Amino acid sequence: MPYNDPMQLPGVYAPLPTPFDDDDRLDVDRLKRSYEQFAAGPLAGFVVLGSNGEAALMDDDESDRAIAAARGVIPRGRPFIVGTGRESTSAAIAAARRAADLGADAVLVRTPGFFKAQMTAEVFVRHYTAVADASPVPVLLYNFTAVTGVNLPVAAVARLATHPNIAGMKESGGDVAQLADLVSSTPPSFQVLAGSASTMYASLCVGVTGAILALAAVVPEACVRLYTLTRQGRHDDSRTLQRELVPLARLLSGHGVAGLKAALKIVGIDAGAPRRPLLPLSEEATAQLRQAVGRVQEVTA
Amino acid sequence: MPYNDPMQLPGVYAPLPTPFDDDDRLDVDRLKRSYEQFAAGPLAGFVVLGSNGEAALMDDDESDRAIAAARGVIPRGRPFIVGTGRESTSAAIAAARRAADLGADAVLVRTPGFFKAQMTAEVFVRHYTAVADASPVPVLLYNFTAVTGVNLPVAAVARLATHPNIAGMKESGGDVAQLADLVSSTPPSFQVLAGSASTMYASLCVGVTGAILALAAVVPEACVRLYTLTRQGRHDDSRTLQRELVPLARLLSGHGVAGLKAALKIVGIDAGAPRRPLLPLSEEATAQLRQAVGRVQEVTA
Amino acid sequence: MPYNDPMQLPGVYAPLPTPFDDDDRLDVDRLKRSYEQFAAGPLAGFVVLGSNGEAALMDDDESDRAIAAARGVIPRGRPFIVGTGRESTSAAIAAARRAADLGADAVLVRTPGFFKAQMTAEVFVRHYTAVADASPVPVLLYNFTAVTGVNLPVAAVARLATHPNIAGMKESGGDVAQLADLVSSTPPSFQVLAGSASTMYASLCVGVTGAILALAAVVPEACVRLYTLTRQGRHDDSRTLQRELVPLARLLSGHGVAGLKAALKIVGIDAGAPRRPLLPLSEEATAQLRQAVGRVQEVTA
Amino acid sequence: MPYNDPMQLPGVYAPLPTPFDDDDRLDVDRLKRSYEQFAAGPLAGFVVLGSNGEAALMDDDESDRAIAAARGVIPRGRPFIVGTGRESTSAAIAAARRAADLGADAVLVRTPGFFKAQMTAEVFVRHYTAVADASPVPVLLYNFTAVTGVNLPVAAVARLATHPNIAGMKESGGDVAQLADLVSSTPPSFQVLAGSASTMYASLCVGVTGAILALAAVVPEACVRLYTLTRQGRHDDSRTLQRELVPLARLLSGHGVAGLKAALKIVGIDAGAPRRPLLPLSEEATAQLRQAVGRVQEVTA
Repeated sequence: MPYNDPMQLPGVYAPLPTPFDDDDRLDVDRLKRSYEQFAAGPLAGFVVLGSNGEAALMDDDESDRAIAAARGVIPRGRPFIVGTGRESTSAAIAAARRAADLGADAVLVRTPGFFKAQMTAEVFVRHYTAVADASPVPVLLYNFTAVTGVNLPVAAVARLATHPNIAGMKESGGDVAQLADLVSSTPPSFQVLAGSASTMYASLCVGVTGAILALAAVVPEACVRLYTLTRQGRHDDSRTLQRELVPLARLLSGHGVAGLKAALKIVGIDAGAPRRPLLPLSEEATAQLRQAVGRVQEVTA
Repeated sequence: MPYNDPMQLPGVYAPLPTPFDDDDRLDVDRLKRSYEQFAAGPLAGFVVLGSNGEAALMDDDESDRAIAAARGVIPRGRPFIVGTGRESTSAAIAAARRAADLGADAVLVRTPGFFKAQMTAEVFVRHYTAVADASPVPVLLYNFTAVTGVNLPVAAVARLATHPNIAGMKESGGDVAQLADLVSSTPPSFQVLAGSASTMYASLCVGVTGAILALAAVVPEACVRLYTLTRQGRHDDSRTLQRELVPLARLLSGHGVAGLKAALKIVGIDAGAPRRPLLPLSEEATAQLRQAVGRVQEVTA
Repeated sequence: MPYNDPMQLPGVYAPLPTPFDDDDRLDVDRLKRSYEQFAAGPLAGFVVLGSNGEAALMDDDESDRAIAAARGVIPRGRPFIVGTGRESTSAAIAAARRAADLGADAVLVRTPGFFKAQMTAEVFVRHYTAVADASPVPVLLYNFTAVTGVNLPVAAVARLATHPNIAGMKESGGDVAQLADLVSSTPPSFQVLAGSASTMYASLCVGVTGAILALAAVVPEACVRLYTLTRQGRHDDSRTLQRELVPLARLLSGHGVAGLKAALKIVGIDAGAPRRPLLPLSEEATAQLRQAVGRVQEVTA
Repeated sequence: MPYNDPMQLPGVYAPLPTPFDDDDRLDVDRLKRSYEQFAAGPLAGFVVLGSNGEAALMDDDESDRAIAAARGVIPRGRPFIVGTGRESTSAAIAAARRAADLGADAVLVRTPGFFKAQMTAEVFVRHYTAVADASPVPVLLYNFTAVTGVNLPVAAVARLATHPNIAGMKESGGDVAQLADLVSSTPPSFQVLAGSASTMYASLCVGVTGAILALAAVVPEACVRLYTLTRQGRHDDSRTLQRELVPLARLLSGHGVAGLKAALKIVGIDAGAPRRPLLPLSEEATAQLRQAVGRVQEVTA
């Protein structure tokens, strides 16, 4: 019976990285230790096996083991969201079912994007409807054009938003007009989550429910504070804090997984190095990152 | 003595269209009649010979006649801004001087963009510095990537913002993160004006001074109300009004000059048809536009 | 001992589709029947599990079963190339090894492309070097920018071309200047294969070894004839034949897998329907395709 | 009576640069001296006031003076083509008439491109039809997407190719498939001229009539030789020569006007420096250019 009360997802979430060991194998111990550190923080919930979780570099067996280990650490009561996007509809369904079996509260399903020219609104609607019909837990749509090369049109989201098992979406792009459109084209119960930290404040202005941000894994307090300030109508303070977050947000966005893992090390969380073919962050870029992290910590101390 | 107190440009501005007659010649009478109508409205000021003024389709002599006619109608006290962008530095200087002689309060200077690959930050800085050094009136930078194919980098704007005769800029793109960046990278006296009506509210949130919007030529009261609501901190009302404006804003943006002129006719302002090769708006698109205009008038009545 | 004499790959190859049954499961019987039909034709060799083989929609177990079934049908002596690209280096190595175990003559390894911003020349060189070091059979690089969103730079190819176990590459883009560059930047033993049927003749002019074309699965004789005419220096005839092939080539390229499978049905080969989320070709598009196939058959009869 | 026998334009043409003096004014003396040097070479004809002629940086009066001066030097019998593209239809007509009065044999009319979203096939057909109806001399269409941001569709060219006063077109893009399409979609009397030196050989393979190349201003003998070799069916020699020309062709294409003027100085032709805002080529880039010019001279000596 998946179709209960609509899931609510206000607040700030972090995509958690997946640690690998020195031989590039999934490192479950390191995963547990680092996730305990994340769980001790103030975030509203967590996403595992998202883009920043290097899910694209992992096979199904590794994914299952990572989910199971994470579930053991992430406390109940805070949404535990699992990335289960796949290129084929059948694989996406199977992944959602496995994640639900392993304790996911919801699944975050990235658009397929390999066959770009064929990914019409109609194809997206069919794909997501099939996945949502089959998934034991609520589905979140996931649009990440910079990575997939396709855009989930607002009109398709508007149609999908009425499905009782589709709870919301993550929009990773920083196009604030598109976010505003998504909010105004979907019912209030549909949870629009922003994915771009550089435009978090503007996204909240135009009505998103919350945000899923790599930045929030690194400086969770600052992100939560920005969320709270905006909710309290303290716009000048929000704008000021947003500006302070932009440089670090840009570095994280630009460096991807390697940047996230390096930044976590800077704040005392060991999530290892990225999996090949990804390279670890250069020393020069790490120094720059350290400075940006320090600046945020100083401002929000 | 151009370098007086910094020019202030708060509020909402409209780019005014240039009327042509049935033989595609500049129609000065129609220009005066229509500009009188604009001047009777609540807008903070006006831009002539901008992109929507079809400046790209006019020669220097026509431009001068249009400026002179406009100056005779636009009341003193509200900024009268003239578009004087040219591809060569020398022509841009000459155009700024002529506009100043004809009574412009400021000039809006679009980036050159023909030789795209060569338009580096360094080239932009030299070009604008030369123009600002020579212009008898304050210069506004003008970035309109969708039309020029080049982007004026924030770093170049930051350097130019310290020039005593550069008063601000118009950024036509709807990238709210870039607008926020422009605001935070320039001194408070530097006037950042947004050019995208769909993101006007979000742009005001991140700190722009005002906006120059084709939408404001068509529904000036609604645009001024959105500006005022946001300035008063009435964010929920602003968000609601912004949403109502988006459909019309999109149609105007999509149809360009032909859409603006058709919409003006709908609200009782005769600005003629666009100049060839531009075609007048189709009847079908005009009907859609009429509906969108009606909807805004209804909401803001 | 993979490093024998360099592999030679002159001529025209086809990427073979993967049949699925009505329940979207791999259909091994249909695969065998259709591959026997392909094997009876004049093509120089075959690629299975390429982009057109819907490899992106299949898991590793399905892939292995498809390879094994294909190997049983494709005659020895004509290169049997298997697509084994994966996003992670370790998965790409494992896939190459499995394919070799199952009888592949060479592996075609698409660039990783999920983490686009991080896919530098350096990353590609390390990735392919690791795969080629480990693969029991020769490796072909595979650049398909329209699908992956990344470009394998000529300079990276030039470095990789000296690896004793990298035999060549498939370049799917139709940029003839880039193909010419690849040819002139690599040793003569390095096999550059074109992937764009619309520019096959021009590609042969600038020196490619051969071509891997979906078009060749549908009208193999015509493609082989174009190859032969050009090799014989009959440029006028080549140009004429190329022109006749362009309309069908464009339709196949535009419709992707659905177009290929529909076109095969037209020529009497049952490869089933595409796997979800892909949709089968519409009747209208199929009719257009039938006409284009008929035109080529007429011209080359 | 413009509609005589169709104009024939086989062979290699050069776009000639426009010299300016140290105060950035048109330098007619330098223009004459340099054009005499070009006229002494083997090229089939010449284009003045093209993109490389910095026409975008000149006003109408300067243009007229440049045309008149050029006409006095360019020998009759070799086509003297003048760039007269303008954004408005009326200005494009006026410019074509003035050029014809000043002795142009044909006019090269770049697509308007300022109002990109409105530049439909229909708009292009109307614009060019109006210009061709009015022009006293034959019109060449001119598609240069990298600069204008718009593409003149093959279907529009096919319609325009039947106009008795439209003699052909210059396609500056290096998309060989599009060139092949243009050739096969237009009558044999329609002269398709390629504008990309890196793909000159491949363009000739697919049937273009000739080429207009900045490279030909710098190393005219080499370009003419490549043309002749290909016409003689000496494809291996052509391919080899084309490869030798690519590095210099790329540098010229990358550096634009500044590169062309610097390269001309290297071969002994003084065309001055580019007009502001363009900057002269850096010393480092000039040294690289010198090496590339030397390499071509060596190979073709």
